[in-house]
Amino acid sequence: MLFRKRTHTCGELRAEHSDSTVTINGWVQSHRNMGGLMFIDLRDRYGITQAVILPESAPELAEKAKEIRSEFVLWISGKVRMRENPNKTIPTGLIEILVEEFEIINKSEVPPFEITPDTKAGEELRLTYRYLDMRRPDLQKKFILRNKLYQTTHAYFAEHNFLEFETPILTKSTPEGARDYLVPSRVHKGNFYALPQSPQLYKQILMMSGFDRYMQIVKCFRDEDLRADRQPEFTQIDVEMSFIEQEDILTLAENFIARAWKEILGIEVQTPFRRMTFKEAMTRYGSDKPDLRYDLELTDITHVVKESGFSVFTTAASKKDGRIALLNAKGCADFSRKQLDELTDYAKKYGAGGLAWIKFIDGTINSPIAKFLTEEEMNAIFLNSKAVDGDLLLIAADEWERCFTVLGALRTEIARRIGILDQVKNSFSFHWVVEFPLLEYSPEENRYVARHHPFTAPMIEDLPLLDASPEYVRAQTHDLIINGYEVAGGSIRIHQNMVQQRMFDLIGLTKEEADQKFGFLLNALKFGAPPHGGIAFGFDRLVMLLAGTDNIREVIAFPKTTSALSLMDGCPSEVVDSQLRELGIALRK
Amino acid sequence: MLFRKRTHTCGELRAEHSDSTVTINGWVQSHRNMGGLMFIDLRDRYGITQAVILPESAPELAEKAKEIRSEFVLWISGKVRMRENPNKTIPTGLIEILVEEFEIINKSEVPPFEITPDTKAGEELRLTYRYLDMRRPDLQKKFILRNKLYQTTHAYFAEHNFLEFETPILTKSTPEGARDYLVPSRVHKGNFYALPQSPQLYKQILMMSGFDRYMQIVKCFRDEDLRADRQPEFTQIDVEMSFIEQEDILTLAENFIARAWKEILGIEVQTPFRRMTFKEAMTRYGSDKPDLRYDLELTDITHVVKESGFSVFTTAASKKDGRIALLNAKGCADFSRKQLDELTDYAKKYGAGGLAWIKFIDGTINSPIAKFLTEEEMNAIFLNSKAVDGDLLLIAADEWERCFTVLGALRTEIARRIGILDQVKNSFSFHWVVEFPLLEYSPEENRYVARHHPFTAPMIEDLPLLDASPEYVRAQTHDLIINGYEVAGGSIRIHQNMVQQRMFDLIGLTKEEADQKFGFLLNALKFGAPPHGGIAFGFDRLVMLLAGTDNIREVIAFPKTTSALSLMDGCPSEVVDSQLRELGIALRK
Repeated sequence: MLFRKRTHTCGELRAEHSDSTVTINGWVQSHRNMGGLMFIDLRDRYGITQAVILPESAPELAEKAKEIRSEFVLWISGKVRMRENPNKTIPTGLIEILVEEFEIINKSEVPPFEITPDTKAGEELRLTYRYLDMRRPDLQKKFILRNKLYQTTHAYFAEHNFLEFETPILTKSTPEGARDYLVPSRVHKGNFYALPQSPQLYKQILMMSGFDRYMQIVKCFRDEDLRADRQPEFTQIDVEMSFIEQEDILTLAENFIARAWKEILGIEVQTPFRRMTFKEAMTRYGSDKPDLRYDLELTDITHVVKESGFSVFTTAASKKDGRIALLNAKGCADFSRKQLDELTDYAKKYGAGGLAWIKFIDGTINSPIAKFLTEEEMNAIFLNSKAVDGDLLLIAADEWERCFTVLGALRTEIARRIGILDQVKNSFSFHWVVEFPLLEYSPEENRYVARHHPFTAPMIEDLPLLDASPEYVRAQTHDLIINGYEVAGGSIRIHQNMVQQRMFDLIGLTKEEADQKFGFLLNALKFGAPPHGGIAFGFDRLVMLLAGTDNIREVIAFPKTTSALSLMDGCPSEVVDSQLRELGIALRK
Repeated sequence: MLFRKRTHTCGELRAEHSDSTVTINGWVQSHRNMGGLMFIDLRDRYGITQAVILPESAPELAEKAKEIRSEFVLWISGKVRMRENPNKTIPTGLIEILVEEFEIINKSEVPPFEITPDTKAGEELRLTYRYLDMRRPDLQKKFILRNKLYQTTHAYFAEHNFLEFETPILTKSTPEGARDYLVPSRVHKGNFYALPQSPQLYKQILMMSGFDRYMQIVKCFRDEDLRADRQPEFTQIDVEMSFIEQEDILTLAENFIARAWKEILGIEVQTPFRRMTFKEAMTRYGSDKPDLRYDLELTDITHVVKESGFSVFTTAASKKDGRIALLNAKGCADFSRKQLDELTDYAKKYGAGGLAWIKFIDGTINSPIAKFLTEEEMNAIFLNSKAVDGDLLLIAADEWERCFTVLGALRTEIARRIGILDQVKNSFSFHWVVEFPLLEYSPEENRYVARHHPFTAPMIEDLPLLDASPEYVRAQTHDLIINGYEVAGGSIRIHQNMVQQRMFDLIGLTKEEADQKFGFLLNALKFGAPPHGGIAFGFDRLVMLLAGTDNIREVIAFPKTTSALSLMDGCPSEVVDSQLRELGIALRK
């Protein structure tokens, strides 16, 4: 043996262990030589325990202890005793170990940053030394929380009779939306596998195989330019069910979320969650994933101002699906010109041509557009938006989706600026957004694309619209929103070959393309597919929310940077040409 | 609603449900029109239920039912009643449903093969229509068993305080042994990720991060030419522990296996398992993963014949580590010349130069080498091998590992030929093989390579041999063998930077190469790595053994063929050149 094995962890000893002889293993969190006393705080995943050496009665131990430095790995044996000065901030704070023997198991160089909760080290340095970063107790807590969510997930779905399945990672490339990561085949040169963006088709195939309840915690991959809360590989809880209707999926998901919040945070979550259509979410909150921890609702004033003297409004109102709407920024009438200009610039980032505003302050109206509106119109605006003295109204006019999206972005920005986001920081809001449009028109590609994915079933009552006005067809979708994050999304799927073919037509896939990409699905749909649907939860996002962080890299053990680098091991990296030759590929000049 | 939702599954109804009105959903397993009675057997994952239509009292139903074909998806509502002719072979066999209403939910074309347990369809056809193949109850049972093993695994390791972690799939390419699958990076052109052959380094990094008990059910990837029981992507239960010794890992693994066998098969497995050194396994059974369900031990006769008149023996004995040994093929003295020739050819496949044999039949000796041996030598051979009348002795002479490997292969072949494998088919044998050599010499590469992997710790008592005779150094390894399959393997790892550097030296990595490939590990070892070790179980192999099959494709939902093709979705496949251009790669001519 190179070391003496622990009898207890560093988080385990309590007053009742007094006088017992114990051994602990761990890392030196700190060491203090007070002359008459030497203290060593030893740390492991479970906690910190103080050990003490008395140089007077144990001079050899004291001499040897002088070699100890931070992050050395030790075993320490000795007798547990009550501390003279208890530390009430830690569970082991009542006791200490009077060291009888110890050895250094392994040494450590001086770490590039301190292993403390409040390290000031930058993220790049911490990611490079991820093994040191993850020794910090606050990061350890996040991974222990993450582990709890795995356990809750496994248990919940097993209790509900779901079968866990593994779908392949080496799959067929069928890019539709995001880019695939490709894997060249050595055996079949010139051919490629793709890493799955989701196991969507495989889980549907499992339904067609008769396994009526499937779940998997699974890695998915998207080769997209990363945003702060995105990773090239991410984890989802993937779920699919047969012989069900949409409400069954929603209920299952709500109970899962309620259980996770209860088991992990001890919070009782009320179910069922509020259901809101896409249309309602957009027109009331200006977002398909509104944060409902606070109100700040939008008001449609098209009917009030469509015949006003302000041409921006009348022009917008005369367009197809044109709308004029406003956000009542409560109590923001004192915003300066500079602040209003910033808000206007912000609105423009979301596609607004400009931003009209009305301040109602000390009983008077202050607005550049006041002169274009009658008193009656102005009164109707106030009435509709419930404006009172001190409010600031921000008005957008545009095609409806852009109009409300701009106001929704302003809603979040105002909530941030006036401190609402801080006030609601520790609360949670859960709701569904359903009935998304089936399709959206892509001007770049000059065709319709599936808003969710092309396997999503249209709403039955909208089927008559498919030919004449496909853009108005709603889909049987459901997105679960928590605090403005889309944490889960899903739909009822198409289970009829004819409908699936029609859907491929609508998004402009020729029969040949559809067969080449999705032939196996179309085939499978010919042999008795059951009605089915499902949902996928973003596992990393759920952990983020439960852990109260907005940095997704804090809840992934080995994350990549926003340019998809792993700083610790330095991947991606160059490979030798013989590897490429074996794969039948070469680098382009 | 497109269908009426089930109140019960097709495996649920029993006599006590008599007279209740129920609805079931499922696939038509069979339908029989007997004139006065029409029967429909409806199938789902849970079982089969018989439904009956009485044409006389329900002529419209009967008319509509004529459209029904195999694999149509139906909902059926009606009243449960006792059958006149119970079917005792299925759990629902006492009852049937008297159909009151039904509808066809989805139709099916005629399947290319029957959905029956004993289908005669070839594997290629079945893999192409995997969704139909997986409807077969015997395949469904295998996946339900696989699901149980997931559940047992999650529960067992959670109960033992292991934390589940996910390690990356996009990792650094550090080929050492098998080939990596590569993934070109779009953002960093000319650079590649590799799919992990195992999460080895990441789990060690987690130990260095202080998470002292890690587990993960994880996909691993090897771009090797496939054998029958190999897949390009496979699943392992990956486990690592800190502050432990090898015996802790063995105990943990044994209890896990015992629990799985108990929960899934109801079989009590005795622990601890037998431990056997590599040397013992090789010299007694001629394999590093011997099947111990039967004896057929080997006998070393070097000391008996090394000075005999047979030059093959004396030459072998005079070589370094040369050995002469035999397998006593009990009762095989009646093997024909043809059979002996086959065995000789078989031995040659394993590298034997030839095969000597001695038959002891009706009290006389029949052997081409008898003339070279004295009576004393012959008697000693019989004595050592416990040969009796009717036995056949098969003798190999070579460098020790080849000599015993040849005899080990013959041991399996003899067991197969004389029906031993059939006799032991339903039994299990569990044991460990430990103390593998740390290194083996690769004549192709003209260097030592790590026998397990280069992070494996040498046995402490063999450290003095590292410089002079590295080939004799044993490693702290452990392989778990069940019925001759290696189902798990692991080791104590190197936790000291100096030892790790020495190991890289020994396998011929220059300091630069070691830094370039494994620099992050060497770095991490400088900051206080704890003693640690672990094990990885082949999940697919465990399921194979539990399910009693030797075809690994039967326990993987979407397997690849031996040429790494997925026949269902047709991957790998060609991709468009714009995808390659974005990745900065091109096909070689």
